[in-house]
Amino acid sequence: MKRIAFLLLAAATAAGVVASTAPASGHPGEEASPIYGVTIPPGYRDWKLIAVKQLHFAGMGEQLRAQVGNDIAIKAFKEGTLPFPDGAIIAAIHWTQVTSEDNNKVLDVPFPGTKSFVVGSRVNVQFMVKDSKRYAATGGWGFADFTDSKPGDKALHET
Amino acid sequence: MKRIAFLLLAAATAAGVVASTAPASGHPGEEASPIYGVTIPPGYRDWKLIAVKQLHFAGMGEQLRAQVGNDIAIKAFKEGTLPFPDGAIIAAIHWTQVTSEDNNKVLDVPFPGTKSFVVGSRVNVQFMVKDSKRYAATGGWGFADFTDSKPGDKALHET
Repeated sequence: MKRIAFLLLAAATAAGVVASTAPASGHPGEEASPIYGVTIPPGYRDWKLIAVKQLHFAGMGEQLRAQVGNDIAIKAFKEGTLPFPDGAIIAAIHWTQVTSEDNNKVLDVPFPGTKSFVVGSRVNVQFMVKDSKRYAATGGWGFADFTDSKPGDKALHET
Repeated sequence: MKRIAFLLLAAATAAGVVASTAPASGHPGEEASPIYGVTIPPGYRDWKLIAVKQLHFAGMGEQLRAQVGNDIAIKAFKEGTLPFPDGAIIAAIHWTQVTSEDNNKVLDVPFPGTKSFVVGSRVNVQFMVKDSKRYAATGGWGFADFTDSKPGDKALHET
């Protein structure tokens, strides 16, 4: 039952993540990224999971990250199709990483000293859109970086 | 372009993850977990993402983890429905965490000293199945822990 208690706790923590990301789905007319003109794809938070990552910035804390893809991207991943077909979109969601004291208490019994980290607040979300004609100058990929549903400036997108 | 190069690199790394997890989908007749009789739900790797986590085991390395849910579970999360309705299933996929030297090289230019960690091999996958009648003795939740599509033993499921 301890294991189940831990999983339930994790699920309760996660509920906030799902709820807090709901408003980030795009609507027509929303602001587009500079240079590439990419808007937030509707429903991207419900896309299928590609991978998870962790990033440690020197002196700047840590992030937990998830990559999700639309159906075209997931199909290409599964079938090993390269280069990615036009229409493929990959989203990278970045959160701050925070310690979960609740998880640590439960885990400390079976695994003494274990530290559990969960997602905190959302930092930003990035989109890569494959369109070999429109984005021919940048290898066929368009790019966007949104914070609180607002795209970053031109300088950010030029990097 | 450096940012796009990094994202493409991340996507290439992820391709292995998606491909390597494909055979883990369940089929009728597969072995069920002791005590709870839970089998691997077909297509769970395509469920929607709930949250990502990182776990640091004292002296035992680190794991990156993702929780995904079936449609009933995702709906309950979004609408804040508690307790979870019968039929909800949450899957927790656990991978080893490894350093990505390729990512580090790209990231070191804009963010000197940044360390990037990606998923290595899959460790195990756990399922929590809500069935208030069948699992009344354990708070309405059944549990399963699979490694290489084989359920763990009775002792593991008793904890």
